[in-house]
Amino acid sequence: MIERAQALITDLYELTMAAAYFDSGLHHDDAVFELFVRRLPNHRSYLIAAGLEEALDYLSSLRFTPDQIDYLREHPVFKNVSGEFFDYLAGFKFTGDVWAMPEGTVAFGMEPLIRVTAPIIEAQIIETFLLSTINFQTMIASKAGRVVTAAEGRGIIEFGTRRAHGTEAGLFAARAAYIGGCIGTSNVEAGHVFGIPTFGTLAHSFVMSFEDEDEAFRAFLKVFPATATVLVDTYDTIDAVTRLVREFGPGIPAVRLDSGDLCDLSKRVRLLLDNAGMTQTKIFASGDLNEYKIAELISGGAKIDSFGVGTELATSSDAPSLSGVYKLSGLEKNGVLSGRIKLSHAKATYPGAKQVWRFRDQAGKYARDLIALADEEIPAANSNDLISPLLTRVMQQGRVVDADQHSADDGANTPDRHTRDSRFSCLNRARDRAAAELTRLSKTILAIDSEDEYPVSFSKRLSSERARLEQKISERRH
Amino acid sequence: MIERAQALITDLYELTMAAAYFDSGLHHDDAVFELFVRRLPNHRSYLIAAGLEEALDYLSSLRFTPDQIDYLREHPVFKNVSGEFFDYLAGFKFTGDVWAMPEGTVAFGMEPLIRVTAPIIEAQIIETFLLSTINFQTMIASKAGRVVTAAEGRGIIEFGTRRAHGTEAGLFAARAAYIGGCIGTSNVEAGHVFGIPTFGTLAHSFVMSFEDEDEAFRAFLKVFPATATVLVDTYDTIDAVTRLVREFGPGIPAVRLDSGDLCDLSKRVRLLLDNAGMTQTKIFASGDLNEYKIAELISGGAKIDSFGVGTELATSSDAPSLSGVYKLSGLEKNGVLSGRIKLSHAKATYPGAKQVWRFRDQAGKYARDLIALADEEIPAANSNDLISPLLTRVMQQGRVVDADQHSADDGANTPDRHTRDSRFSCLNRARDRAAAELTRLSKTILAIDSEDEYPVSFSKRLSSERARLEQKISERRH
Repeated sequence: MIERAQALITDLYELTMAAAYFDSGLHHDDAVFELFVRRLPNHRSYLIAAGLEEALDYLSSLRFTPDQIDYLREHPVFKNVSGEFFDYLAGFKFTGDVWAMPEGTVAFGMEPLIRVTAPIIEAQIIETFLLSTINFQTMIASKAGRVVTAAEGRGIIEFGTRRAHGTEAGLFAARAAYIGGCIGTSNVEAGHVFGIPTFGTLAHSFVMSFEDEDEAFRAFLKVFPATATVLVDTYDTIDAVTRLVREFGPGIPAVRLDSGDLCDLSKRVRLLLDNAGMTQTKIFASGDLNEYKIAELISGGAKIDSFGVGTELATSSDAPSLSGVYKLSGLEKNGVLSGRIKLSHAKATYPGAKQVWRFRDQAGKYARDLIALADEEIPAANSNDLISPLLTRVMQQGRVVDADQHSADDGANTPDRHTRDSRFSCLNRARDRAAAELTRLSKTILAIDSEDEYPVSFSKRLSSERARLEQKISERRH
Repeated sequence: MIERAQALITDLYELTMAAAYFDSGLHHDDAVFELFVRRLPNHRSYLIAAGLEEALDYLSSLRFTPDQIDYLREHPVFKNVSGEFFDYLAGFKFTGDVWAMPEGTVAFGMEPLIRVTAPIIEAQIIETFLLSTINFQTMIASKAGRVVTAAEGRGIIEFGTRRAHGTEAGLFAARAAYIGGCIGTSNVEAGHVFGIPTFGTLAHSFVMSFEDEDEAFRAFLKVFPATATVLVDTYDTIDAVTRLVREFGPGIPAVRLDSGDLCDLSKRVRLLLDNAGMTQTKIFASGDLNEYKIAELISGGAKIDSFGVGTELATSSDAPSLSGVYKLSGLEKNGVLSGRIKLSHAKATYPGAKQVWRFRDQAGKYARDLIALADEEIPAANSNDLISPLLTRVMQQGRVVDADQHSADDGANTPDRHTRDSRFSCLNRARDRAAAELTRLSKTILAIDSEDEYPVSFSKRLSSERARLEQKISERRH
């Protein structure tokens, strides 16, 4: 795995608040925080949850190193803070419980993707990292779901590291895109670390570095006879394919179109290939693609077998941030959880620890979701099998629980979560889950130009709890 | 520094091309690649170059580990590749020369930000990492320049890690935003690693975790009496400030507005503070801000001393990718450099190793840029001091040259580039450079709604070289 000193990847206020909690003696009180997206971004009708594995890795390994603590001690803001706080940080471990939607779960606005119950000081310190990781990967997996849906079964390869927000973003974009249904990535590290299938073609620079195009093709096909995807648009696409057919014949695994009118070119190239009996040679297309362009190519009858999608996928460029928030919803005092809400304009929250229930119709399609208190009994849940809870326990007292097998990871009889193989199995479960869940969405929600909103409601108990607290806050203030 | 095995952070095709170059015996030939942005994104009238330090760190430390090479050997695509190629990778070092615009340089479309001259196999392998790093940091620094310009001297603090594209993106966004003129960041790791000043306030969750707001204020101010920025909008901003003034008085360093009508609230809060003699208490504002909203607040007379800008800055959300490309522009055969160009639609390139010259007018303002061949004599360059070249040598035969002092880093008498202090000096030089350069742009280019285009032209020799090559390629094809 990527080794990093992650404890300081946090906003300064998490640590100043921690110091103030510590000073107030509040740091032992258990708090409930929930991570959710209030409203889906423009052009999004669903989310695909992703990033949980990295979040759990972080939570289970989070420590402050002596060097980091020295840095904080010398920070001007901490000059009045007692040494005891830094001793506390030196022994810091995350000891809380975490419930979460497994990666690959389809989710909607207001639904907690993650619920953390932990001493408030711990729950606060982890906020920035959790948000950054979950917001990013969920955003990319959700975008990938759209692109994959538009391709109607044709393969999508994630290609965007060069335009991603730095190299780590490229790596995790590849991971999240795979969860969202891509068949692979061009990012080699994503193959090395996560086991994701990696694909490549060749660049214009390669073609240009030879005296002529044919010489470049020969040099590349000699080394990669069984896997080469030959780039044919450096000078003139149709010319290049005509010569490829004549000189190399059926041995060519695939050709790549990267510019021009991809729909028209793909048809002409397919015809050239088929007329030469090269029906096995695939056509791969790329060039600033997104879900809309892919849908248009397919509806135009383009003869394209698979697509490379870079910038727009790896940056989710039409909705380049996901505004997930992490909100305090309850605080335990003397063993009693009391709900907490925020009243600020348009940023209201609901109190208490929550569960999300999903209702399916008789055909198995998702009909609606209900957000309820975690300890609420949902009457229908016992009487039929068309309702299921979405949040499962993934961490107990700071230790990862294998959400897929519901067995505690006691470090002895469970496989190492950090081998390439185990990461890849985990990823494939998430990818399969996403694929299965997407088939249960109605066509109108799944459509890339959907304007429908999937029905999500709050339980009566949640709504009345919220009203009660509003009343209480308002009374206290007047 | 963040330790990562970076060699595989690359697109697979860089490595398949490398294998084919190796097999063809072409890998010793020196190639020239240039990294540039063809056209500035929407809403951008200039770029601020950033990311070079990370690129140089990568180039000087790039190695393939045995584990990485094992992974490649087992990759299905490499099954026909000779063992000699992997032996080559095992001994791989980057040995090339690099010329670049120093970080903080203002740049425009088509201008090489980086020029690499190296054996083609080396120059190819580094493509993905260079693009990812330079594209991202340049994009963020450029966005920061706009936000800082809009604030007309008021401080901007970068706040966006939670919405950045993962945690590393958050860290480097903080770095690039500082180059672009921000006064600091909320990201603690950015302070720890780069020495960037870090700032924080407190969150709604902190206020909500106490029985009432005043108790929360007391708890926080007790620990941070000299630095606290008190968040006042959890329940009712004016109420909260009224009580703060009454109960805590002039000791309050600053208050933070995070919702509502910031312009109106800031005026009312300023009045409350001033009437209580609290003229020293600052007002900090945040809440989905960007350069346009800040400009509007200022023109509306808002009484805000500094701004926190998160999502829109850390993701450059109105232009969330920078489409920098890395193009082969020349290849040396038997000691002679021959230019290379690409003809594809709308993606034309110019041949040869280039330099960018910047012309200033008598007032010192930037008037125009000229892209010329690196060995071209620019007649005016000798006759006055109003012309300067923008690309300087930053790496020679794989070793970093200190661009700011123009002395070779021989590892003995230069300071360690990897301490916090040296990184911070480097960053401050870049930040000062950006600030100075922005003052030399005309008001119409600098305006956040600029529709002007800064004049950039190609030298006659470049244009005729390009025409000659076009002719040659076209003759060869007919």
